[in-house]
Amino acid sequence: MTQRQETKLWGGRFAEATDGLVELFNASVPFDQRLAEQDIRGSLAHVAMLGQVGILSGEEVGQIEEGLEAILEDVRAGDFEWRLDREDVHMNVEAALRDRIGPVAGKLHTARSRNDQVAVDFRLFTKEAALDLAAKTRALRAVMVGEAEKHLSSGAGEPVILPGYTHLQVAQPILLSHWFMAYAAMLERDEGRFRDAAERMDESPLGSSALAGTPWPIDRHATAQALGFARPTANSLDGVGSRDFALEFLSACAILSAHLSRLSEELILYSTFEFGFLTLPDSHTTGSSIMPQKKNPDVSELARGKAGRVFGNLMGLLTVVKGTPLAYNKDLQEDKEGVFDSYDTLSIVLRLYGDMLPKSTWHAAVTKAAAARGFSTATDLADHLARSGVPFREAHEVVGGLVGLASRTGRQLWDLTDEEVRAAHPQLSAEITRAMTVEESVKARQSYGGTAPEQVRAQAEAARTALS
Amino acid sequence: MTQRQETKLWGGRFAEATDGLVELFNASVPFDQRLAEQDIRGSLAHVAMLGQVGILSGEEVGQIEEGLEAILEDVRAGDFEWRLDREDVHMNVEAALRDRIGPVAGKLHTARSRNDQVAVDFRLFTKEAALDLAAKTRALRAVMVGEAEKHLSSGAGEPVILPGYTHLQVAQPILLSHWFMAYAAMLERDEGRFRDAAERMDESPLGSSALAGTPWPIDRHATAQALGFARPTANSLDGVGSRDFALEFLSACAILSAHLSRLSEELILYSTFEFGFLTLPDSHTTGSSIMPQKKNPDVSELARGKAGRVFGNLMGLLTVVKGTPLAYNKDLQEDKEGVFDSYDTLSIVLRLYGDMLPKSTWHAAVTKAAAARGFSTATDLADHLARSGVPFREAHEVVGGLVGLASRTGRQLWDLTDEEVRAAHPQLSAEITRAMTVEESVKARQSYGGTAPEQVRAQAEAARTALS
Amino acid sequence: MTQRQETKLWGGRFAEATDGLVELFNASVPFDQRLAEQDIRGSLAHVAMLGQVGILSGEEVGQIEEGLEAILEDVRAGDFEWRLDREDVHMNVEAALRDRIGPVAGKLHTARSRNDQVAVDFRLFTKEAALDLAAKTRALRAVMVGEAEKHLSSGAGEPVILPGYTHLQVAQPILLSHWFMAYAAMLERDEGRFRDAAERMDESPLGSSALAGTPWPIDRHATAQALGFARPTANSLDGVGSRDFALEFLSACAILSAHLSRLSEELILYSTFEFGFLTLPDSHTTGSSIMPQKKNPDVSELARGKAGRVFGNLMGLLTVVKGTPLAYNKDLQEDKEGVFDSYDTLSIVLRLYGDMLPKSTWHAAVTKAAAARGFSTATDLADHLARSGVPFREAHEVVGGLVGLASRTGRQLWDLTDEEVRAAHPQLSAEITRAMTVEESVKARQSYGGTAPEQVRAQAEAARTALS
Amino acid sequence: MTQRQETKLWGGRFAEATDGLVELFNASVPFDQRLAEQDIRGSLAHVAMLGQVGILSGEEVGQIEEGLEAILEDVRAGDFEWRLDREDVHMNVEAALRDRIGPVAGKLHTARSRNDQVAVDFRLFTKEAALDLAAKTRALRAVMVGEAEKHLSSGAGEPVILPGYTHLQVAQPILLSHWFMAYAAMLERDEGRFRDAAERMDESPLGSSALAGTPWPIDRHATAQALGFARPTANSLDGVGSRDFALEFLSACAILSAHLSRLSEELILYSTFEFGFLTLPDSHTTGSSIMPQKKNPDVSELARGKAGRVFGNLMGLLTVVKGTPLAYNKDLQEDKEGVFDSYDTLSIVLRLYGDMLPKSTWHAAVTKAAAARGFSTATDLADHLARSGVPFREAHEVVGGLVGLASRTGRQLWDLTDEEVRAAHPQLSAEITRAMTVEESVKARQSYGGTAPEQVRAQAEAARTALS
Repeated sequence: MTQRQETKLWGGRFAEATDGLVELFNASVPFDQRLAEQDIRGSLAHVAMLGQVGILSGEEVGQIEEGLEAILEDVRAGDFEWRLDREDVHMNVEAALRDRIGPVAGKLHTARSRNDQVAVDFRLFTKEAALDLAAKTRALRAVMVGEAEKHLSSGAGEPVILPGYTHLQVAQPILLSHWFMAYAAMLERDEGRFRDAAERMDESPLGSSALAGTPWPIDRHATAQALGFARPTANSLDGVGSRDFALEFLSACAILSAHLSRLSEELILYSTFEFGFLTLPDSHTTGSSIMPQKKNPDVSELARGKAGRVFGNLMGLLTVVKGTPLAYNKDLQEDKEGVFDSYDTLSIVLRLYGDMLPKSTWHAAVTKAAAARGFSTATDLADHLARSGVPFREAHEVVGGLVGLASRTGRQLWDLTDEEVRAAHPQLSAEITRAMTVEESVKARQSYGGTAPEQVRAQAEAARTALS
Repeated sequence: MTQRQETKLWGGRFAEATDGLVELFNASVPFDQRLAEQDIRGSLAHVAMLGQVGILSGEEVGQIEEGLEAILEDVRAGDFEWRLDREDVHMNVEAALRDRIGPVAGKLHTARSRNDQVAVDFRLFTKEAALDLAAKTRALRAVMVGEAEKHLSSGAGEPVILPGYTHLQVAQPILLSHWFMAYAAMLERDEGRFRDAAERMDESPLGSSALAGTPWPIDRHATAQALGFARPTANSLDGVGSRDFALEFLSACAILSAHLSRLSEELILYSTFEFGFLTLPDSHTTGSSIMPQKKNPDVSELARGKAGRVFGNLMGLLTVVKGTPLAYNKDLQEDKEGVFDSYDTLSIVLRLYGDMLPKSTWHAAVTKAAAARGFSTATDLADHLARSGVPFREAHEVVGGLVGLASRTGRQLWDLTDEEVRAAHPQLSAEITRAMTVEESVKARQSYGGTAPEQVRAQAEAARTALS
Repeated sequence: MTQRQETKLWGGRFAEATDGLVELFNASVPFDQRLAEQDIRGSLAHVAMLGQVGILSGEEVGQIEEGLEAILEDVRAGDFEWRLDREDVHMNVEAALRDRIGPVAGKLHTARSRNDQVAVDFRLFTKEAALDLAAKTRALRAVMVGEAEKHLSSGAGEPVILPGYTHLQVAQPILLSHWFMAYAAMLERDEGRFRDAAERMDESPLGSSALAGTPWPIDRHATAQALGFARPTANSLDGVGSRDFALEFLSACAILSAHLSRLSEELILYSTFEFGFLTLPDSHTTGSSIMPQKKNPDVSELARGKAGRVFGNLMGLLTVVKGTPLAYNKDLQEDKEGVFDSYDTLSIVLRLYGDMLPKSTWHAAVTKAAAARGFSTATDLADHLARSGVPFREAHEVVGGLVGLASRTGRQLWDLTDEEVRAAHPQLSAEITRAMTVEESVKARQSYGGTAPEQVRAQAEAARTALS
Repeated sequence: MTQRQETKLWGGRFAEATDGLVELFNASVPFDQRLAEQDIRGSLAHVAMLGQVGILSGEEVGQIEEGLEAILEDVRAGDFEWRLDREDVHMNVEAALRDRIGPVAGKLHTARSRNDQVAVDFRLFTKEAALDLAAKTRALRAVMVGEAEKHLSSGAGEPVILPGYTHLQVAQPILLSHWFMAYAAMLERDEGRFRDAAERMDESPLGSSALAGTPWPIDRHATAQALGFARPTANSLDGVGSRDFALEFLSACAILSAHLSRLSEELILYSTFEFGFLTLPDSHTTGSSIMPQKKNPDVSELARGKAGRVFGNLMGLLTVVKGTPLAYNKDLQEDKEGVFDSYDTLSIVLRLYGDMLPKSTWHAAVTKAAAARGFSTATDLADHLARSGVPFREAHEVVGGLVGLASRTGRQLWDLTDEEVRAAHPQLSAEITRAMTVEESVKARQSYGGTAPEQVRAQAEAARTALS
């Protein structure tokens, strides 16, 4: 038996050695070594249970536990030698255990298969990743709420006013704090998706064995509990063959990424020369190797671009699962890298935004001036007319005419003469148009969830309470 | 004013008419007319509230309500004339209202924008679609459980045995009922995803107005309640600009589609001549225009293929949302067709499977014979050895050797001579290998969630309870 | 035989009628009726060949041809009655032919299957769609070149200067014409992709029959030629079972969509109040139902968003094809809608941009002023220093220091005093910094493909030549 | 200046150091170090040209070349120290050059930007990857043709007969060689896609500089030629900002992956116990850790699953590019990993199939028996009838009836009595039905591209000629 074959735990019926390139192609250890901790935790729970139900003796359990713990230490210390010819994390750990404690190591695999082993490892990882991203999403949400609170009073005690856009055209003035609270609302739902996913996947597949369960008198509730799962999976075929938990995790990641890409887009726009609303901190921007003046919003650009890799990871795993029969197929080995990558990507983006936003400087005078552009209070004027009894559609048309006039002559609504205004509608006057400032516009929007300072403050307070 | 411009409710500032091709390109009425019912329900809730808070008089409310209800009847009867030049469902309804009741119709649009109108229509639709797919998923799950119960005793009172596969190689015998319960488990989670999504999106954006809320003294809690929403959205910018509710719905659809594609693949395989496990009903198969003998599993093939359109719909909307600034952008108009299409697709697939599965015939003798092939009880033999104290890894290797021997000589394990068996390991005998039948194998797998009849019956009972 | 069964051309072996819902699910006629013209052309080619090789008599051929042509006229006139119970376009046409000319219609199906019939119809469509999009892409490219030429001299005879961006930060001044030529270059490659795809799919599958060819003495080269294909497919299994031609078409569509989404993004940005570079024509923008001042770049927003549906269509068909065995599977019925939809979408977007761009107004004074912002000529200063022998990296650092100084004090480079400039590097002076205007910057970039007017003119001329 | 800042080549205007996490997030060196060779080749071409046009002195050029070559050696030997704080491959190489030859290294960056540097590196890589995959696809195609030739005569000199499937139901007998030639045809088009992509991207962006070209008197044709490109890109903005070359490469990869996933699916099916057509070599299959009898088709399963990652890579980059303005944005840094990963994945899959297929054993007796199942010659019978003048549709119905009769009574067509056969149609007899063997069926399909041995041999010969 060659050294290569030594660790093949399934070599019995094979007459010919595995091709080297096949081995390389099949080997998952370059990426699944990341599951080493989960794998050893799973084995520890399994062996303890084997002892409790009397399948293994106390002595055997002790030897195996000791061996596993020593290996865990090596792994944590970075001293573990990962071997490609040992195929995957499970075989690496098991072979290392045998190297360390001899043939009794072989008893660990009683009443277990790699199929349920990888299912348990990967579920542990994904559940923890979901909970961790939930926490990080929550942390960023807290930052958003903090920013909302901060910008409710700018230097002069006035809330910072931002243009509200639709179609990227100035629509109506809003509070910057209102804008922050919109992202806080999205992140709240994102957190909920991660938590729902974590809860739904909170089931231990351990003991599903290869696919059909096992004749050994194991206690699946005990191992589930030991591993912190809420319950064992109810069906062994499903336990080893399903990957919807990973798909749901990736879906939550993709939606969060979509939100972060929108935030990124806005920050990139707002920090252009043309918008000029925002200065990002030097610590979170970079320069150019050829253009000395550049200050690039790299973090936001990468965060926007990284939506691509997360969407791609989701599409990738959907494709993998599509059309595969039950239960385990080797195709499923492709499930891990996308989950790891999405988790790592979002972990860092969430942290970076949490750091960067509070260090960014908003230019209140610029944003307020911009909010006044583009006839942004025209709706207020139409609303004013409508409140005098003019059907809103007619009011809208009247104001549209005034906007057209002002626009053609390079003026704002408040620059129109009293004559011009009255000509448009007898119930209007220049006094009225001049009263339509952005501050008044904002203050007036007192509807629940609206942009009036009281409303935004109430939103922030509710969020603050929910967060604490 | 040309007839074309007549219905443009925003024409005031425009000097030139909209290009005809642009109008065609922009018009969403060919697909969003599907939201007519939701649109009118939204308008009825809105106008009633406008009356309650005193913005409109009782008489105005009455006129508008009467007009809207008449339009709703027309829509339901298929008598409503949809006009492309009226752009979208909202404008069509509003213009029809004006045609019917005159200028007072214009008051309906007070304190509202098309941005919150479409948000409320589309949320109503998507929430109802999510709940409907939850119910249909549940119904199919009930069918799965019913089939599981049915096949616990075949004609002869014995449960139907199926080969359990991994890598599409016969692995271990399982019960057909166990296989059905695996899909029931997946569908249970699918239902959960639809319900979680419906709950998370159960918020009314009505009153968000264009994006900033409104100065009108509206009551958003009242309209939310009237429309059956749990609460109003907390932030107006988020209310009109977010589409994660649609993304979450599409994600749940995609994961369900992946499950249905797996089921489809298995049914297609099992109804081939080569497997021969299953005869699909004539009512759910089709023939060939050239090959008179063909009986094609079209339903399953289409169900498998339609995973593609659902994945594509998800990818499509993720792309649309990616990188768009707040709040509404016209890009978002692209959100609806994929949701409609995914909903329709899954509605029909779920119903068809619910009809087809109980009408399908499983060939128990064929499946049992297949389950015995491929040394499917070899694990049982290894487990037997391991129970005598041989480390599992060693037992595995011994049995692997026997399998190799049998395989090379064209025999099954039970065909090996006593001599051959004993030569492999002193604790084995031909008596033992012959006892390793598929029935015994199945009965032995008594672990929780395993394939032993008692376990599967318990699974089915638990599911039956949960379903009732 | 019920009316429903009457048209099932494969009913012979079936004891039970097809379920109504299955029929609805299977029916492709709602979308594949679009292939009616191709279907009839295919049949005409087939029947003519059957006559040539003596399988059908001249009289039979004549009857069938006459019938088909009459049907084609009906189809074109919109008078053809499409029946869902006749499943697909092929069955509808064939049944209509039988209705019209009696049982001899049945001879048309000699030596042919629906499998090769749909393959030929769909290839004809896709090839023509690819060539049509190639032509439309070319037409838009011609518009881009025309715009480039136009803006080489603005009103005052000077070329229009635009800020060139990287990271959406002003980087260096460029010509607007240079920007147009960048899109022309992308479109040139897009056209190439469509042409390559059309050429690669230019093979007739007709005569592949169900999958194995046919024993009839047909002449596939004759039908290929009659249908305008370059050659027949070389392998019948591949001919009916492959859909890479549609995938390649969709890939080309997706890449073109990506380019159009970038163009759209820039036009949306440039027509904001904040950038103010561009006024889109009234004919190609729309207003708001609530905000009278809005002028929304709907065409560009939709064009950007529609990248989503095209990407989704590609993802959808990739998923459909993934893992399906040869040859035809019903899954493949899902191939058409995405191709139709992508073709329609891009046809209209390409035309709209061709109309809209020449009607848009660029504000040369605004773009020039913007191009001067942000120290956009700092690289020129660094280059100047480097030309005096200072290593570029050192020069870059010196200029970076000056930019920092100017930036911190709210000035431009040309506002710095001679003293400040000289302090940064002895080889610099205020005279030099003041010479670094955007015009000079642009003129200096004479490298091949650079933004100097001569270079851009040469690009446009080369493109013009290539286009004619 | 801290050590961290030492290598920032753009630090001039920055007052605060880059955040550590940002640095980690931005750094591309973990993956783009793979472009080291291309980067240095690009620099060598650039510096040589700088010398030729007189921007650098011969001595400077010599120093830089020597330094770069020494670095290239280090890289190849694995001795190069990659530093994360030096951000990317370009900065690593340039800083190492400075470490080695001092400040003159700074002159290398004259008339160049990282934007065109990365564009040239990545294009070189992608073009070479496209050509390499074209060659590997061609090599696998040659293997397919070889297998086709081999199986034209099985042991007994007869060609191997395989069931031809549609809907995975046996349709008509075909030759195994015909099946191999179908895949050869797909691979031929796949190769064409890679070659077209390579040709379209065969343009050097070097000299585009940051985006606008450069005032230095560079010679872009010289560097293009030195790097083996057909020509320089015609527009500098397009040269640095476009990534359609990578998208086209990924599209070709995705389509090839789809083909390989179909091949994989068929091999997995054919090597099941139930089909039993094929034994894969031990060298290319693996076993189970728990089920000693298993022999799993891992290579094919992984190849099928890996379609997911390749589709995901394409979707990822489409998403990245969508909606980004010109020219370079940091988002584009996300372009590389998907290309590397797709290239590596397909390289290994193509090689593995080239190795595995010739080592696989087809069981001709099994496949022939399977081909006879399922009334696979029923079409032949219908064709026979049709040749006697019965309209094909009628013939089809007659034979469908016979199939139904045989099917209901558990017989094959050739088991029907003469009486039964004649009752179905007077022009039929049992003699005729018995003559409908699979061999005769195959031999009869003499249409061009059909499955008759002469036709398949002609296909293989044509392919062999094309390949040599």
